[in-house]
Amino acid sequence: MRPAHTRIPADIGCALDYERHAAHHIEAMAWRHIQGGADQNLTLAHNRAALDALRLLPRPLASLRSGHTRLTLLGQAFEHPLLLAPVAYQGLAHPEGEIASVRAAMALRAGYIASTLSSHTLEDIAAAAQAAARELGYGAPLWFQLYSQPAREHTLALLRRAEAAGYQAIVWTVDASIKRSGFALPPSVEAANLRGYPAMQHTPQAIGGAVLLGTPLADAAPALEDLEWLRAQTRLPLIVKGVLSPRVAAEAVARGADALVVSNHGGRVMDGVPAPIEVLPAIRAAVPAAPLLLDSGIRWGTDAAKALALGASAVLIGRPQLHALAVAGVQGVAHLLLTLRSELELALAQLGCARLEQLTPEAVWDESSKK
Amino acid sequence: MRPAHTRIPADIGCALDYERHAAHHIEAMAWRHIQGGADQNLTLAHNRAALDALRLLPRPLASLRSGHTRLTLLGQAFEHPLLLAPVAYQGLAHPEGEIASVRAAMALRAGYIASTLSSHTLEDIAAAAQAAARELGYGAPLWFQLYSQPAREHTLALLRRAEAAGYQAIVWTVDASIKRSGFALPPSVEAANLRGYPAMQHTPQAIGGAVLLGTPLADAAPALEDLEWLRAQTRLPLIVKGVLSPRVAAEAVARGADALVVSNHGGRVMDGVPAPIEVLPAIRAAVPAAPLLLDSGIRWGTDAAKALALGASAVLIGRPQLHALAVAGVQGVAHLLLTLRSELELALAQLGCARLEQLTPEAVWDESSKK
Amino acid sequence: MRPAHTRIPADIGCALDYERHAAHHIEAMAWRHIQGGADQNLTLAHNRAALDALRLLPRPLASLRSGHTRLTLLGQAFEHPLLLAPVAYQGLAHPEGEIASVRAAMALRAGYIASTLSSHTLEDIAAAAQAAARELGYGAPLWFQLYSQPAREHTLALLRRAEAAGYQAIVWTVDASIKRSGFALPPSVEAANLRGYPAMQHTPQAIGGAVLLGTPLADAAPALEDLEWLRAQTRLPLIVKGVLSPRVAAEAVARGADALVVSNHGGRVMDGVPAPIEVLPAIRAAVPAAPLLLDSGIRWGTDAAKALALGASAVLIGRPQLHALAVAGVQGVAHLLLTLRSELELALAQLGCARLEQLTPEAVWDESSKK
Amino acid sequence: MRPAHTRIPADIGCALDYERHAAHHIEAMAWRHIQGGADQNLTLAHNRAALDALRLLPRPLASLRSGHTRLTLLGQAFEHPLLLAPVAYQGLAHPEGEIASVRAAMALRAGYIASTLSSHTLEDIAAAAQAAARELGYGAPLWFQLYSQPAREHTLALLRRAEAAGYQAIVWTVDASIKRSGFALPPSVEAANLRGYPAMQHTPQAIGGAVLLGTPLADAAPALEDLEWLRAQTRLPLIVKGVLSPRVAAEAVARGADALVVSNHGGRVMDGVPAPIEVLPAIRAAVPAAPLLLDSGIRWGTDAAKALALGASAVLIGRPQLHALAVAGVQGVAHLLLTLRSELELALAQLGCARLEQLTPEAVWDESSKK
Repeated sequence: MRPAHTRIPADIGCALDYERHAAHHIEAMAWRHIQGGADQNLTLAHNRAALDALRLLPRPLASLRSGHTRLTLLGQAFEHPLLLAPVAYQGLAHPEGEIASVRAAMALRAGYIASTLSSHTLEDIAAAAQAAARELGYGAPLWFQLYSQPAREHTLALLRRAEAAGYQAIVWTVDASIKRSGFALPPSVEAANLRGYPAMQHTPQAIGGAVLLGTPLADAAPALEDLEWLRAQTRLPLIVKGVLSPRVAAEAVARGADALVVSNHGGRVMDGVPAPIEVLPAIRAAVPAAPLLLDSGIRWGTDAAKALALGASAVLIGRPQLHALAVAGVQGVAHLLLTLRSELELALAQLGCARLEQLTPEAVWDESSKK
Repeated sequence: MRPAHTRIPADIGCALDYERHAAHHIEAMAWRHIQGGADQNLTLAHNRAALDALRLLPRPLASLRSGHTRLTLLGQAFEHPLLLAPVAYQGLAHPEGEIASVRAAMALRAGYIASTLSSHTLEDIAAAAQAAARELGYGAPLWFQLYSQPAREHTLALLRRAEAAGYQAIVWTVDASIKRSGFALPPSVEAANLRGYPAMQHTPQAIGGAVLLGTPLADAAPALEDLEWLRAQTRLPLIVKGVLSPRVAAEAVARGADALVVSNHGGRVMDGVPAPIEVLPAIRAAVPAAPLLLDSGIRWGTDAAKALALGASAVLIGRPQLHALAVAGVQGVAHLLLTLRSELELALAQLGCARLEQLTPEAVWDESSKK
Repeated sequence: MRPAHTRIPADIGCALDYERHAAHHIEAMAWRHIQGGADQNLTLAHNRAALDALRLLPRPLASLRSGHTRLTLLGQAFEHPLLLAPVAYQGLAHPEGEIASVRAAMALRAGYIASTLSSHTLEDIAAAAQAAARELGYGAPLWFQLYSQPAREHTLALLRRAEAAGYQAIVWTVDASIKRSGFALPPSVEAANLRGYPAMQHTPQAIGGAVLLGTPLADAAPALEDLEWLRAQTRLPLIVKGVLSPRVAAEAVARGADALVVSNHGGRVMDGVPAPIEVLPAIRAAVPAAPLLLDSGIRWGTDAAKALALGASAVLIGRPQLHALAVAGVQGVAHLLLTLRSELELALAQLGCARLEQLTPEAVWDESSKK
Repeated sequence: MRPAHTRIPADIGCALDYERHAAHHIEAMAWRHIQGGADQNLTLAHNRAALDALRLLPRPLASLRSGHTRLTLLGQAFEHPLLLAPVAYQGLAHPEGEIASVRAAMALRAGYIASTLSSHTLEDIAAAAQAAARELGYGAPLWFQLYSQPAREHTLALLRRAEAAGYQAIVWTVDASIKRSGFALPPSVEAANLRGYPAMQHTPQAIGGAVLLGTPLADAAPALEDLEWLRAQTRLPLIVKGVLSPRVAAEAVARGADALVVSNHGGRVMDGVPAPIEVLPAIRAAVPAAPLLLDSGIRWGTDAAKALALGASAVLIGRPQLHALAVAGVQGVAHLLLTLRSELELALAQLGCARLEQLTPEAVWDESSKK
């Protein structure tokens, strides 16, 4: 296992190059945990395959004059539609962890979503972001990803801390309250935000007894009434993360979600589910007015272009963040973001789009109609 | 070839891990026989591919309170919908063979189907099950799989023995009366139930003469009139195993079958047939009221969830039984069942189903409509 | 390169086993010539893939009593629907060449089609067939495959020789008059039927001149008027071999063809054409009354069952003939035929067909309708 | 790295054989540059896969008498529909570069398109073509491929030079003004036509600033008004190269394009775009009267036949030109052209087409209808 480089290696030109390098910069058990998906990794592979299967239809001869990639989301201004996803335990990739990634995000004007399961506290992350923005003279929105805790009082405590620290939106993850994992954190990494909070205990029953359904763990899974409760607790925008079903999307928006993240949690939770890009058109149709973000598998600028064309307002970058962090720390994440943004702009130029709103489903070649 | 472990190896977390290990615990010729399918193994591979190709659509935010996996089948209560399939000659995998697998089934409250071709007698298997249930204070239904014998008197004798031993249903297999196999049992393993019963003789003809059609072997294949005869011989529920055709399903139910097992015999009989999961919706439509079980390729809890969503009441676990038996005997089979049940409950939780009846075709993402 | 075995190797159980063995019994250049297809071998691979992609739907519980595989084709009686295809230069596989393969065909009651390009004369092949039939007390129909010669007088001479030698039908091949081949026959093998007949000369033009179109080779390609001429020359049944197009099928039948062979010449002529099994339903619909035979890719009894289900009356076995001949001479071909017939009968039994006419398109699972 | 052979190696029989050999005759960095595509090379692979997926339906028994492959395009006579595509920097493959390839084209009567980015000047290339044609007593049309320069005066200067040198049409490339490339030309190779012309400068901005959209590079991309301007500057036929969108095709023709090249620039510009052969039918329908040429992936005569059947008038040969040049210089390119022409004529013969106009969409097997 090698320490992070102090400069970007010469043979890195895309996000997948960071992945290739990162295998040598992360401890083997942590690497397997980071890279792995549920069961057979079908979803993990399918997330990529579904993106690769889509084809973009170039539109040369369009004017690109005065183009830009700016957008407004939930009333907040973004320079471009690439955000850093909430990725747990970034200390596994680099000692500076989330402090490095948030600094890179600010420098590249990328929105940043801090995870409940960060290895630095949400307060430290926010402080680092604010310091970087002061130094740069510019920044980008900072959001907080929230996991419901076994007791509502602790969920509420996290929410209040995020509000106090200056986070500008809450991203409530609902697709991963129950999953299998055999990974134990190394001693150097902890869930810094949850110090002193009780964890959900899942006590195995006697052989032949209840396994999951009928136990406290299942009974406490986030439900629609929890969404209503949470909505009532804060004036920050509330984004529900982990939606693949058009019906659930409509229910969540009806109960107060301001936006949704279409995601299968990077293929980590249940194997054999659709890729977000596949369900995006149906979710776009189910909630025509809701801002949609998308993650799980974005590795190229053209991937982002595909998601934006099919109805997403922005995309989140997950595992590549850890890869770039492990390879070259804050510089790696900054270079990753610049690379993805450059690729996205090249794609926009090829697609004849001077601005994001010109990117519509027509940019995706419809193989069925050979239109 | 290694003996079975006395405890579960640490690197086993799923049914396929048992398969990987089992290659080292089963004699090479027997291993090829167990693992092999007909001709090119297309069906064997397709059984898995057809399950993997289906995608489940998670439904977060549903309430899971007071969930369970209980069901009633043919008037009999099951704790969960995972049954051990009738697998021949379990002595090939472990000296304790069916005695070990039936004990594991009872401990994990899993229905058990003893094979006509078991390496222990049906009476010994039933006695082991009953002793285990007494010891545990609980158990699970015990069924007997019946192969028609060359003479009806011997078929009837098997049926009466099963009734006398306390089996609660008859699973009549109709898809494997004629097939090719070059495998000879080792001296230590025999068809214990058939001691003293005559086997069908298939005498090769002179070159240029009849090969199969027109010989006694073909003339004696199970036909609809045999189903009617068998139905008239017993008051136990009668389940017809080995149906892939909606038309045959309807005929079998019309002639008295109480339930069906949708199966291609684990890909062992004819190559190039549909996977059970593919034909399940059409069979469900053809016999709307009949309980359907399904086997051939179930290796994950999500596979079971897919079958249940598309109309099966329960699924049968075939080859993995032998794999777990070979690796760790009774403990292996028990751990396999617990693993599969845990996986199924995780899937149910992700799908927002607190009970089995909530699992409907809507849980399967319809790729054609991109609904 | 090893000589043929004098008995069937123990590890041979199917046609593909013969192929595997044959690589060691045929000289390398000849092996490449025999095994190769046009250009990238896409058609060669696709012929197999198209058969493998079809699924048969078993029909248990049907009565198989008094079953058989007999059929009548062009007024001639066949014991089963497996014929040996006209395969050129069998001397490349075994010194006895066509003499061995025709003897095996007679012993297994398989129809035999002698090639214009045989390494023994058509007279010697017919004599061997007739001697074998006398010895056995039974036989099978003997047909002659005709390639048009540069001059009609030589085509007519071949036809008259075939009539005189007792051949019972003419199979006129129309799909291979123009193709590329860099293979030169070894000195021990010749086109025995064509001794003294002039070959078509294809003289390369000056650079920049005509390549193929506009040269005598293209001008002499078999055309519809040649079919009418040939039809007028003989009272034997006339079968046109090498049809993939429904339109050409209808034209050929309208001009006097008594039957067709749906074939892409084993993928040897043009790459990227449909597999015969794919076009069979459309050709069946285009010429509802014409007997259809099919070759190119048949390697298993289930392949033959698929072709028969979709409208073929019989199938031809091509390259496997050479493989079996190379491995074990006359015994090899006889065993190959017995193996394929056994497989076909097993398939018929699984499909609930006691006779060939019961095998209809319903036996093929329709994936599109999930019927 | 080996020098070019002085005669064609004996094991070369098709374009892909040249590719295989060429890897040993081109310097490693240049080889990667020549062979590579955008991002993951999905488009590069898809260009081939889309051609391979189409199947041609042979039509035996058609008359081929008096056949030929001649065509008229933009009022110019071509002996056959295979043209050499504009391929940049042919000096990377062979010291004689474009001088050798244009001589080979003339000898084989193949249309030739000189690239703006040629390693010899357009004047030298034209002179070599004219000298060859004088020597041979025949030739073929000579066209010039134009890249718009940062300033219109330099674009116009190139156009005037091409007119003066005798080029007969202008091929204006519009799909590659903005792309990524890390390749630096070796000292021995230069853009000979552009000596003294200023290159577009793309100065990176400060971190966080504009990346592409909003910079001079994007603002200067060729737009519809540039097409109108260019159309007004010359009386030569104007062909727009790099169209995949039916809508852009219609716009370009409406603004004065005389013909189009359906192309994705050999998969080099943006990854994940359709293959030209896929969009060809829709473009044919969008501009029914415009001559269409097609490139990107043509490697076999059957590929050309597929493109012609679906609406192209001719095809361009790109990378194989460099491969043949590297392997055997002028002789290699000539042999490549003869090979492709022979393959195309074999395909025409199999398809029953004595002339190009007989090649219609009916020659492509429609898998969806199984017609």
